[in-house]
Amino acid sequence: MMGAKGAGATAIAKASRTKIRIRGHDLCDDLIGKVDFTTFFFLHLTGEMPNEKQVFFLNAMLVALAEHGLTPSAQAARMTLQAGPDAMQGAVAAGILGCGSVILGSAESCGRFLSQGVARVRAGESNDEVARAMVQGLRDQKKFLPGFGHPLHRPVDPRAVKLLALADEKGASGDHVAFLKAVAGVADGIYGREMVMNVNGPLPAILLDLDFPEAALKGISILCRTAGLIGHCVEELERPIGFRLAHLGDAGTVYDGPNPPEDL
Amino acid sequence: MMGAKGAGATAIAKASRTKIRIRGHDLCDDLIGKVDFTTFFFLHLTGEMPNEKQVFFLNAMLVALAEHGLTPSAQAARMTLQAGPDAMQGAVAAGILGCGSVILGSAESCGRFLSQGVARVRAGESNDEVARAMVQGLRDQKKFLPGFGHPLHRPVDPRAVKLLALADEKGASGDHVAFLKAVAGVADGIYGREMVMNVNGPLPAILLDLDFPEAALKGISILCRTAGLIGHCVEELERPIGFRLAHLGDAGTVYDGPNPPEDL
Amino acid sequence: MMGAKGAGATAIAKASRTKIRIRGHDLCDDLIGKVDFTTFFFLHLTGEMPNEKQVFFLNAMLVALAEHGLTPSAQAARMTLQAGPDAMQGAVAAGILGCGSVILGSAESCGRFLSQGVARVRAGESNDEVARAMVQGLRDQKKFLPGFGHPLHRPVDPRAVKLLALADEKGASGDHVAFLKAVAGVADGIYGREMVMNVNGPLPAILLDLDFPEAALKGISILCRTAGLIGHCVEELERPIGFRLAHLGDAGTVYDGPNPPEDL
Amino acid sequence: MMGAKGAGATAIAKASRTKIRIRGHDLCDDLIGKVDFTTFFFLHLTGEMPNEKQVFFLNAMLVALAEHGLTPSAQAARMTLQAGPDAMQGAVAAGILGCGSVILGSAESCGRFLSQGVARVRAGESNDEVARAMVQGLRDQKKFLPGFGHPLHRPVDPRAVKLLALADEKGASGDHVAFLKAVAGVADGIYGREMVMNVNGPLPAILLDLDFPEAALKGISILCRTAGLIGHCVEELERPIGFRLAHLGDAGTVYDGPNPPEDL
Repeated sequence: MMGAKGAGATAIAKASRTKIRIRGHDLCDDLIGKVDFTTFFFLHLTGEMPNEKQVFFLNAMLVALAEHGLTPSAQAARMTLQAGPDAMQGAVAAGILGCGSVILGSAESCGRFLSQGVARVRAGESNDEVARAMVQGLRDQKKFLPGFGHPLHRPVDPRAVKLLALADEKGASGDHVAFLKAVAGVADGIYGREMVMNVNGPLPAILLDLDFPEAALKGISILCRTAGLIGHCVEELERPIGFRLAHLGDAGTVYDGPNPPEDL
Repeated sequence: MMGAKGAGATAIAKASRTKIRIRGHDLCDDLIGKVDFTTFFFLHLTGEMPNEKQVFFLNAMLVALAEHGLTPSAQAARMTLQAGPDAMQGAVAAGILGCGSVILGSAESCGRFLSQGVARVRAGESNDEVARAMVQGLRDQKKFLPGFGHPLHRPVDPRAVKLLALADEKGASGDHVAFLKAVAGVADGIYGREMVMNVNGPLPAILLDLDFPEAALKGISILCRTAGLIGHCVEELERPIGFRLAHLGDAGTVYDGPNPPEDL
Repeated sequence: MMGAKGAGATAIAKASRTKIRIRGHDLCDDLIGKVDFTTFFFLHLTGEMPNEKQVFFLNAMLVALAEHGLTPSAQAARMTLQAGPDAMQGAVAAGILGCGSVILGSAESCGRFLSQGVARVRAGESNDEVARAMVQGLRDQKKFLPGFGHPLHRPVDPRAVKLLALADEKGASGDHVAFLKAVAGVADGIYGREMVMNVNGPLPAILLDLDFPEAALKGISILCRTAGLIGHCVEELERPIGFRLAHLGDAGTVYDGPNPPEDL
Repeated sequence: MMGAKGAGATAIAKASRTKIRIRGHDLCDDLIGKVDFTTFFFLHLTGEMPNEKQVFFLNAMLVALAEHGLTPSAQAARMTLQAGPDAMQGAVAAGILGCGSVILGSAESCGRFLSQGVARVRAGESNDEVARAMVQGLRDQKKFLPGFGHPLHRPVDPRAVKLLALADEKGASGDHVAFLKAVAGVADGIYGREMVMNVNGPLPAILLDLDFPEAALKGISILCRTAGLIGHCVEELERPIGFRLAHLGDAGTVYDGPNPPEDL
């Protein structure tokens, strides 16, 4: 059977009859009532207690990304809940599955992009040089520039602006933010159109500057969208619109296959 | 088509080209960097800013329930992630789907049970009287007593004890906590065995005493378990044990169907 | 830890280094290339090879229920796929989560309803008598009549008509079909409006008459909708409409919360 | 809003008050009771009725891959079901989410690999030449060879052997099967160890030789595993082992974090 070899181990938590220890802390004596949920999330993820700046920006990111109206994932969750109102976990799961590579998941790909850029800058190249080379590289391959582009917000994504302003104000901006700004400076010229920096640009830039683990970037959107989806589910239980949303989608879509029913 | 009739409406959020308003608050001006994630969650859910006590106990609950070691849902998430490491959203969704009616989802059924009890108490019966009648009713139908019973913790679930102590200390205990205590007082006698109050007893009792919406109780476990699952996923990416967990489950299970392979 | 006690066993399948045995049959020698997928599904589920009539009707049900246009679950899947085109499993899972108790899952509740009715008929009451009593009971509790009602099809659901005709033609109709017909005979009068029998009436009636396990009824919709969702996903990869469906839903929904953005 | 531009269209199906047309066929007149589920799946996916050979091999693949004992996805489904027995759709979804890129999803990556090879062969290179170059390329990048490797089966995966034998016997083998055999001929030498061809080698090879759409290859595993998962769910309802599987996984895993509870 697969996975058979080697020791299996976890360093996150262990429960006994009388104790639950999480990252070495006693859950009941040291954490419940003593740390807030955001602090707990950081500790659970990294094994380290966050400093004040880390908690501040983690909260800022979770608040910035939790809700954006009737997004595809909110609609998927609401349609799913109206079909099975007794299984909220299914509706939330359906919504979370929309945190894919294209939307919401793009914090992850932008984080990778920024890390690669910063590595080159730290090795001696200038921010502008590396930004030009990497953006041109994506453009040549007709690829998206991660962290840029938004279907609605013009001329800026107000969340991106706010987060960058906070990072400068609180002294959190480091190499990743600097590189992101260099990318923003060359993007319009290279892509030949206005490239709106979206929230998934500053989010990984600032968090990476604050030593947040790169592998966990996608977790930020997943966690805060879960909160947003729960809100949509509770509203859906009181004022259902899930099937109505599906009706609107259906009514606005053409059937262009062979032989449609005669009595449409 | 279904859902066609009547107006469809949402009161949660609306985004325009330059603004995102959530429950009437401007996301960038009033929320990002000003409220923490727990406060945001309450506001998003209810439309109202929480008071200090509500934030304190919401944090306490989210911390208390986020992690409990290699639970079924953590294992389901880790198995799923090792099978598709590029899709963390799928692994988290698989784990969340384990917040069913039996475990994790029991905050919801306990909340309903407590509400029914408190309604009778408020209508004139005594806590003890109502507790006896309702617990006996469940026992007679051979049903579980929601909020009681734990496979591991003995003689108490330390989280339940801690949460009740905090509720008393902070003056948060009201009618639901009082009724829960009455239930605890009669449960052992009626079920004829030691009934350990688990964390899903005090969680709904305290939150209902603080006017948290009953329909959102299940959302508490879903949200905080999501945080826990993200931590497990990040560890799984570094030190995979998902397939190994499946191997252990397989190796410890007997095949008792017809005609097993000869070369096992 | 929970689940610790007692032996764990499965009778479905066992793989060794050289063999895979499923319900006692050798997968490679006896099944691959020898039985079709529908036969395999029945065997896997029940441990018994199906007879010709069982295969015929299982195929009929799976074909009847697999596709119904841009349903909520097809839309949820397509929105999810456009957000993460590399994770088709996530999109299909999001769609399947819509097989809840209200739609698709209603084969299950109708099956339970029919079984209860047939038990009473077999104990001596007449079909008409039991149908009247049980339908009136639901009506008095303002509950839905499972297997009846459709948002689109008028005056009949053509699938229901077809399946009942096939059952009569092939001699498959038994006690459950007879009871379903009795229910149909009294439903309009008791509910005071036209009650369209939908596909989830004949589906459980016929399958229960053919000894299909009641606990697996929900599996029928889940399996065949999975096939339908895969077709939608493949079309979505070529001609994406997922985000457009979400746009239509959003554009057709009113924001009625406080303080909307000024530049909508 | 995203997705706003351009016409939205689907060519799969359209329902009216009295008709459901799927790929132009009338569901009730032409499909229910006339075509089996596997034929329907192909028609739904491609818009074309399959020929006899296509149906035969589609059945063979669906049967070959549906079940392999207590796999990670079967265990994830069973753990999820025991936690929420009323939501089978959630348990099946949790299992399907395990059809990731590493296992089950590998039919997709192997299909892509074979297509690339066949394109080069059709452009003039020999099977052996292309196989050597492409396998060496993967080896040099320390990547897996898709369609090869199995944690249990030795010295062959019996399903792979059976499927290739059937393809030869029925005259279904074409360029993709020929290229797969060339790959098998050089794999051991280049990787320096025994490379067991698994079921996800012949599956895409044969289906691509039969003009099955490459984009739908992943759908094969998703569809047939859904059938397998339903069987596991039905057994789980009767003889639950989900939590026990989790107990086994937990008991066999070491906690190597700081400060374990003293009373383990």
